[in-house]
Amino acid sequence: MDLQKYLDGLFEFLTIPSISAQSEHKKDINSATVWLQKKFSDLDFNANILPTNGHPVVYAENLRAGKEKPTILVYGHYDVQDPGNLNEWITKPFIPEIRSGNLYARGSSDDKGQLYTWIAAIEELIKRNDIDLNIKFLIEGEEELGSLNLDEFIEQNKSLLVSDFCVISDSHCLSENQPMIDYGLRGIVYVEIKVKTLGKDSHSGIYGGNILNPLNVLAEIVSKLKGHDFKVLIPKFYESVRKISIQEKRRLSRLPLTEKDIISETGAQIVIGEPGYTLHERAGARPTLDVNGIWGGYQGEGPKTIIPSEANAKISMRLVPFQTSADIYQKFVNYVQKITPPGVELTIKLLSTAEPILFNIKSKYFKVAEKSYENIFGSRPVYELSGGTIGVTASFKNILGINSILMGYGLPDDGLHGPNEKLSLSMFEKGIKTNIEFLKNI
Amino acid sequence: MDLQKYLDGLFEFLTIPSISAQSEHKKDINSATVWLQKKFSDLDFNANILPTNGHPVVYAENLRAGKEKPTILVYGHYDVQDPGNLNEWITKPFIPEIRSGNLYARGSSDDKGQLYTWIAAIEELIKRNDIDLNIKFLIEGEEELGSLNLDEFIEQNKSLLVSDFCVISDSHCLSENQPMIDYGLRGIVYVEIKVKTLGKDSHSGIYGGNILNPLNVLAEIVSKLKGHDFKVLIPKFYESVRKISIQEKRRLSRLPLTEKDIISETGAQIVIGEPGYTLHERAGARPTLDVNGIWGGYQGEGPKTIIPSEANAKISMRLVPFQTSADIYQKFVNYVQKITPPGVELTIKLLSTAEPILFNIKSKYFKVAEKSYENIFGSRPVYELSGGTIGVTASFKNILGINSILMGYGLPDDGLHGPNEKLSLSMFEKGIKTNIEFLKNI
Repeated sequence: MDLQKYLDGLFEFLTIPSISAQSEHKKDINSATVWLQKKFSDLDFNANILPTNGHPVVYAENLRAGKEKPTILVYGHYDVQDPGNLNEWITKPFIPEIRSGNLYARGSSDDKGQLYTWIAAIEELIKRNDIDLNIKFLIEGEEELGSLNLDEFIEQNKSLLVSDFCVISDSHCLSENQPMIDYGLRGIVYVEIKVKTLGKDSHSGIYGGNILNPLNVLAEIVSKLKGHDFKVLIPKFYESVRKISIQEKRRLSRLPLTEKDIISETGAQIVIGEPGYTLHERAGARPTLDVNGIWGGYQGEGPKTIIPSEANAKISMRLVPFQTSADIYQKFVNYVQKITPPGVELTIKLLSTAEPILFNIKSKYFKVAEKSYENIFGSRPVYELSGGTIGVTASFKNILGINSILMGYGLPDDGLHGPNEKLSLSMFEKGIKTNIEFLKNI
Repeated sequence: MDLQKYLDGLFEFLTIPSISAQSEHKKDINSATVWLQKKFSDLDFNANILPTNGHPVVYAENLRAGKEKPTILVYGHYDVQDPGNLNEWITKPFIPEIRSGNLYARGSSDDKGQLYTWIAAIEELIKRNDIDLNIKFLIEGEEELGSLNLDEFIEQNKSLLVSDFCVISDSHCLSENQPMIDYGLRGIVYVEIKVKTLGKDSHSGIYGGNILNPLNVLAEIVSKLKGHDFKVLIPKFYESVRKISIQEKRRLSRLPLTEKDIISETGAQIVIGEPGYTLHERAGARPTLDVNGIWGGYQGEGPKTIIPSEANAKISMRLVPFQTSADIYQKFVNYVQKITPPGVELTIKLLSTAEPILFNIKSKYFKVAEKSYENIFGSRPVYELSGGTIGVTASFKNILGINSILMGYGLPDDGLHGPNEKLSLSMFEKGIKTNIEFLKNI
């Protein structure tokens, strides 16, 4: 296998600063789609750049295997996060460099490098003339923005996307030698609330004692969302939560996640959480609620004696099967309205949602994936319930009726979204080989 | 009385943009002090610009009346607030203009114009050769910054500042026809708290459920500072609060402050406060606690799924006699430490303090002030307990041992600190005349 050739291709792809959040990178977004279209055309795919209400999607297909053969859909994203503070990068984020067995560049792990393991695997199989499947690629450019326009695209292109199942490499293994498959993902409801009590900022000396301070009101609302046992206090919040079986509990308990890991990764002083659940159950099998941002009033240096007119918070809830975003959003709204005191103008804005999902690990695709990992990594993958959210998997399930498999080749320390993002070269190679095994054994 | 001459002087003074908060206005701060020094020298005062650790103080004295005669200290400030958004000003903030009987300019009411009523009164009496008192002026340049260096200056210049009492015009009358004297002022303790639970911002999907979110922690701390009856929950917070007498209650009840006033001035939907107290008692005779600012995590557009590493709040408490800032600060610290959960690095920073004060309205100076107001305005002044804070009055009391009288000539709608600040010309004239009456009748 000519690894250098695939690395060269990935290097080219990584030099395009396709940052989806910044309008000055619109031309780079376009370059990335053109680059992908050419890449797939060279591989004899029918490749198109298709518009959405946001950044375009690259859709490429090779259906020569014929209708009798399975069709797999590969999902990935060509957009990347802003590199942040360039001073924190050892080398430039869009000039890839290899150091001590790792490839450093923005997007190397999330998601250009992982996506490329599929492009390379298919290129290799085409070269060997050893491919007997129909392949579709759906590569979007707004994953880092929350895939805002993807559901509509999938709805409108249902017949184009018909497949037997989907593979996604946008996650990680436990270590270089221990592969892992996510068999479920949390969903999310993300809201912004505004609490307005005054027409304008007012003097705290003159009015303090006689008017409602929105910051005090907001703090009280937020404090009533979670109890001291870290349970969410929204009525019936846990009503639809899936109970995990003893067997599943046992399986999850084998994952080597420790309090020490969490403390060293986040710098937390202590680990907290709902009593009666393990660390992994809390992160993957239990829903959570967090305030992601809060602001209002004076934030500058020194004292300023105002009672501000309004206060704001961003709040997200991670959902697990079989909660739904619509139901949880409604329960949140009802509860917050109920606990908001009189004299307050309350605005709740829904910023994004994604449904939780649980995959059918008994399907043959999971068995093949397991075997492929084992052949290349030398050990069987462990299964985890991921705490994160990849909303497209639920969309594929709900709109296209297909299952996804998350076959990640990142490592926990890849530094996604941060400085010095990297991809392990050996993981890249193992990824390509595992994908080849998988494609040959379906 | 040559009103035009005094207006011309004030116009000159108002054209100097002596904004104390902005270092690019350092030269204007100096111009203002030089202007005042010249003004006082022209009036045959011994005038000096004295350094502090911040902006200088102008100190001027004329002690020719001799030791047998009383010495009054006039306090004022030559610094002004930033004009804010210039688009909201009808005319430029530092080019004074008269429109419909009002003088518009930054500092016209707070405090150059009110201070000038004393300069003009003394100029007038000198012209009439009718002054029989010793006069000292202490004019600072950091009032809008919280008078950070003034206490130290007063301490170091005790003997220079020895006086019988102090007059301050930096407040307002109820209306053009209803003078008002503040007989007490609230003090303040202003703190900033930081709640840190993580070494870095962390992913809410991966870690949500297992780590402490500082925004949830901060919200809970803040929500425990005040109860549903709007009482402060810090233990023994009300322990030293002065009880007001029936007679005083009756006098305060005559002040024409209504819920409608508060609602129209602040845009509040409702008026709230401690049960059992009137609006004016709550604002002047009761201590309060307000959050002035709060921030942490993501505040931009759209969703971002982080658990931030820290959260911050600015919190101020207005104190009434006989609370002290040292005692209340200590009680605040003890309580917040007690209600902060484990796993949190809590930092409390004291940003500023001022002591509450109550003046002796039975002193002869108050009687003379009352009579002077009545002679000029045609009605006796009402007495109020101000909700605001002028820390220097407590410093004069505690360091110099002298009482102050707050004789304000502003009006409630002067728009201090906002756009289109103004001073009523008739109030300016009445102010000068009232001061003349006062100085002649001591």
